[in-house]
This record gives sequence, structure tokens and C-alpha cells, in this order.
Amino acid sequence: MLEPIRYKDGKLIIIDQTLLPVEYREIEIQTLEEAYDAIKTLQVRGAPAIGVFAAYAILVYAMTLDEEEFHVKFKKASKKLAESRPTAVNLFWALERMERTLVRHKEEPLEEILNALEQEAVSIHQEDIDTCRRIGLHGAELLKDGQTILTHCNAGILATSKYGTALSPVYIAKEQGKEIKVYADETRPLLQGSRLTTFELMREGIDVTLIADNMAGLVMREGKIDAVIVGCDRVAANGDTANKIGTYSVAVLAKAHHIPFYIAGPKSTFDLGCGSGDEIPIEERDSREIICGMGAQTAPMDVKVYNPAFDVTPHELIDGFITEEGILRPPFTESIRNLFNKERK
Amino acid sequence: MLEPIRYKDGKLIIIDQTLLPVEYREIEIQTLEEAYDAIKTLQVRGAPAIGVFAAYAILVYAMTLDEEEFHVKFKKASKKLAESRPTAVNLFWALERMERTLVRHKEEPLEEILNALEQEAVSIHQEDIDTCRRIGLHGAELLKDGQTILTHCNAGILATSKYGTALSPVYIAKEQGKEIKVYADETRPLLQGSRLTTFELMREGIDVTLIADNMAGLVMREGKIDAVIVGCDRVAANGDTANKIGTYSVAVLAKAHHIPFYIAGPKSTFDLGCGSGDEIPIEERDSREIICGMGAQTAPMDVKVYNPAFDVTPHELIDGFITEEGILRPPFTESIRNLFNKERK
Repeated sequence: MLEPIRYKDGKLIIIDQTLLPVEYREIEIQTLEEAYDAIKTLQVRGAPAIGVFAAYAILVYAMTLDEEEFHVKFKKASKKLAESRPTAVNLFWALERMERTLVRHKEEPLEEILNALEQEAVSIHQEDIDTCRRIGLHGAELLKDGQTILTHCNAGILATSKYGTALSPVYIAKEQGKEIKVYADETRPLLQGSRLTTFELMREGIDVTLIADNMAGLVMREGKIDAVIVGCDRVAANGDTANKIGTYSVAVLAKAHHIPFYIAGPKSTFDLGCGSGDEIPIEERDSREIICGMGAQTAPMDVKVYNPAFDVTPHELIDGFITEEGILRPPFTESIRNLFNKERK
Repeated sequence: MLEPIRYKDGKLIIIDQTLLPVEYREIEIQTLEEAYDAIKTLQVRGAPAIGVFAAYAILVYAMTLDEEEFHVKFKKASKKLAESRPTAVNLFWALERMERTLVRHKEEPLEEILNALEQEAVSIHQEDIDTCRRIGLHGAELLKDGQTILTHCNAGILATSKYGTALSPVYIAKEQGKEIKVYADETRPLLQGSRLTTFELMREGIDVTLIADNMAGLVMREGKIDAVIVGCDRVAANGDTANKIGTYSVAVLAKAHHIPFYIAGPKSTFDLGCGSGDEIPIEERDSREIICGMGAQTAPMDVKVYNPAFDVTPHELIDGFITEEGILRPPFTESIRNLFNKERK
């Protein structure tokens, strides 16, 4: 399988996802600025992957510091990385784990602090792989041999450390001998569906069909879709879910066609501090992504553009959350609370 | 206002719409092959415009023929033009009018036949301008000052001879002193919304905001849209309507948000020979429109693609048809039948 984020002995390597599928290029991230830009320009993207990446990035940055002002500089760097994308909660969560690790070891020699930070980042990485695999195992139970899912954006291997979230059930089902087909929305403006989802599914031998976003309703009406599975960037305490722009439209369409609509995501994407979707800040991105996002100018340069990067799907359109601890069913306020009250099995 | 199709003294000029909005270029269509290609490659597009264009194109072709085999060659040319796009009914309707004109005048000298054909083509053109204006007058009654519509694809000036169908109510409302704002879906894969709708609306001084197709649900949920108005390529006897791919999804979304959904189109787009949408053939287009449609490769070259050019919106999702003879309301089987039973007012 692809490895979108690799770390060894102080070297942090990612696949530059802005170049896929035309070019497969690995790049090394050496400075804080490179790390910030890598998130900002979507060289690395996907809520779980951003969390893992940020942990390694601040580790690599910490390795360049001397003892003087270590804590101040570390905290400042963490703040800067957290500003790279405002919507995904995993980013803040991973950086907080790194900061807490620093606080726990702050009286120790620098080498020990760096060791502890490295162990924590590697743990975050390993836990993400484990979590994604468990999401896949639970999600695969929802899928029967020969069924077809529709997905939006890329919540696959390339959005995580391995397996993905929304696509993990498809990969695990394949391991189990079930053949699941996928329809992939191309996902304007940045086309993560056509650029990334088709690329990774084809590489793993999964039957995938690419459609434009506006065809989702038609393929549902034509009876081609058995379930929708998408990822998530932040889930509020009541189940309202922020995910890639267009997810909300897909959820409304799924409901109208009586097709089950699932959100796949790790526990770390749930933000109990957020009561409902109204409290989730939505990033608006540059209008040029719409006007000339694919190598050609396709609209008047001075046209007014609305370009939110995410939307919020209200919980009543969601049939279940596929998490590493099982499937959460409505009422979500209760099932999400239970997810956090019980110990990890 | 823009004039997408101009004819004078045997010269047929169109705006090459594949180059907009980056370049405004007029081209002269001199041969049958050029006319066929102009429709096929969407240099000229929009159901009403294709009808007007086809009438002029076969006239210009007829002018190059001598008396020998005139009828046979004319009929063959008509058949070829009719094959350029399978979904829009206006194309067949305009060519049939030209063929019937020929039949009526077949015993006359060639010059008289050509005069009659020219008069018929000019009539089709003038009637389209008149029809579109009347659609606008009826449609404007549905819109209040300050309201905002959402539209999909381009059913504006550039899809007709003047005014457009879906956008005519906006232009006429402006004449009447009402300010109507527009949200334009970019309309993948060929981006008629971003390339053409924004271009013509900005040129006419209308406030337009461009969005990606997958944002339609969000702007509806945000309360930004008072009505949806789109054009049509063919309307069946029961009101089922074929239009640009994505229209069906927009209709489902409008219904879910209790936003009125209107189809604007001339009587010539209604096909009483078609009982329901199931009988309308849907053109599938080249997968390259999705894989590398905008100057850059954005998906693996060998990815499987589904690329229907149209979809069918079932009549139960439609609140009304805006025609040159007024607004048709449900039940449509009855109101459409009445449209054809009464004489034109």
C-alpha cells in the first residue's frame, strides 16, 4: 500500500498530493515553513493525515532547536501549524498531544525531551494505522459482496496513514474476499476524488468509476449505489459533521433516494467541545481555485465567487458513524457521549 | 446584447463558445461539415440556438447545390445535421420545418426554393427572439425585486438568439427595474455556467456569483436562493424534462429546501411524441471531458468514467414551466396538452 507519510531518524517524507495522479513525487519536509505550506497548499491533506503530519513536523522542528527558549519556540511553532487549516480538529488534537508530552518531560535533558516527542509522534502515527484498520473492519460489516458505494473527496489511504477512513471498509472487504465497487465524485474545486481516490483505488485493484459531482443524483436514481461513505473533518457532539464541500448535497440526495449515508472517522475527529454544526468554523478558500483551478482559465477573472472548503451535514441526514470502536447509530448525542465514556476496548 | 448567431446575405456567423470567456471570437460557417462540427464540439450550443443554427446551416449548404439531386442532397444533409446531437428536440424540429418548406416549394425554380428556405430560417430566428422575450415577460412575474435565483448550465442569451430562456426573466426583470441576483453552478464537465453564464450576466450588469456544482445544496440551506430556473433540452408529454447533467440533483435539492423549481423553455422543446422521460435518449460523451477537460490531466488516463451529457428530472420535482404562452402548472399532462390545443395568443 501507499505510504503518504513516512518518518525515520529525523527525516519526514510525504507524497506531494498536489501533483497526483500525473506525477508521483516524494518530498522531504525540513523546516516549519515547509510544513505549514505543505498543509496550506494541500501537499498533505485529509484530517487524520494532517494530525500525524503535524506531530512529525513539530518534532522535526524541535530537533533544530537548542535549549534556549525551547519551550517558547515550540509553543509558537505549534500555534503557527494550528493556523494552517481551521476546520480539521485532528490537527489541534495532535499538536496538543505533542505539547502535553513536552510539559510532562520539561524538566528532563533536551535529548530525553526529543526522545519523548519522537515516541509520541510515532505513537500517533501507529494509532492512526490501527484506528483506520479497525474502522475498516467495522465498516466492512455494512457491505455485502457485489455492492457499490459512492464516496466524495478522498478519505482513503492518502488522507490517513494507511487504509483510509471512508475507503478502509472497501479495502478490508477486499481482504475478506468481498468485491465492492466504488463511484467517486470528482470533488470540485480541487478534484481530490478524480486525482486521489481513483488513483489509489486503481492501484489497489478496486473497480472505481469517476463521475462529476453533479452526477451523484443520477447514479443514485439509476439504482447504482447501495450506500454512501464519506470521511469527516470535524463531528460535533450532536453528530453534525463538517466535511469537504459537497458532502451536504450528497447527504440530501442519499436521503431522497433512501440510500444509507455513513460518515467514517476516528474518535479524534469528534469534538465534544462543539455542541452543533453551527459552531464549526468553515474555511473559505481562494476564488482562483474555481476560476482557474485546473491549468486553464474557465471563468471571467473578476467574477464573484463563493468558495467554502467544507459544509456541515446535519445529523438527521446521517445513518451512522463508522468509528474504530464500532458503528454509532442515532440518537447521536447519546451514542457519541457513550463513545467517550467507555474505555477503549 | 450579444448575438450568438448572425445571418446576412448567405453569411452565417457564430461566436465560438468553446473559447469563452478567455477569448471572444466570431467564426463563419461555410460548409456542412463545419456546421456539423460546430454543433458537435459545442461552438454553438443550447437547444433553441442549435435549432436556429441548423436552419441557417442547411440554408447555406443548399445555396452551394445545383438543381441536380438538390432534394436528395438536402435530405441527406438534414439527416447528417440531425445526428450531431441526439437529445435536443429543437434541432429536429427546425430541420423538419426547413424540409417541409422545401416540399411546399419543390416545383418552383431553384431561386424561389432558396428564397423560401431563407425566409423560413429567418422566421425561425425571429420567432426564437420573440419567444425568448415572451418567456422572460412571463417568468419575470415570478420574481420579486431583490430576489436571488440559482441556475445550472447556460440557458441564457448564448443558448438562444437573444434573452435566453432561464435567464430571460432576469433580463426582463432588470428592464422592469427589478434587481435579481444569480448564483451560477459552474456545470461540470464543460463548465457552461462558469464560462458562459457568468460572462453574459456580467456583460449585462447582473450580480452573479459563481459556485461549484456541489455547493448548490449549501447555498440553498443558507437561505440564499429564492427560486431555481433552468432551461431544457426536451420535455416529455408528462412534464419529465431532459436538461444538462446535474439538473436532476439540483431539482432534488430544491425540493428538499422547499425552493420553487422552474423549467424555462419554448413550446418547440416539448415533445408530445415522448410519453415520459424514459423515452428520451441520453447522449454519453467522451471520458476525456472529465479526465482532462480543462487544460490539465486531473485523473488517471485509464480510469473508468461515466459521462452522461443530460439527465431527466421527473415532473413531480417541477413547480412550473415558463413558456412563451405563460406558466404551466401541474398536473402537467393536462397543462402541456392544453398548450398545444389552444391557438397561439
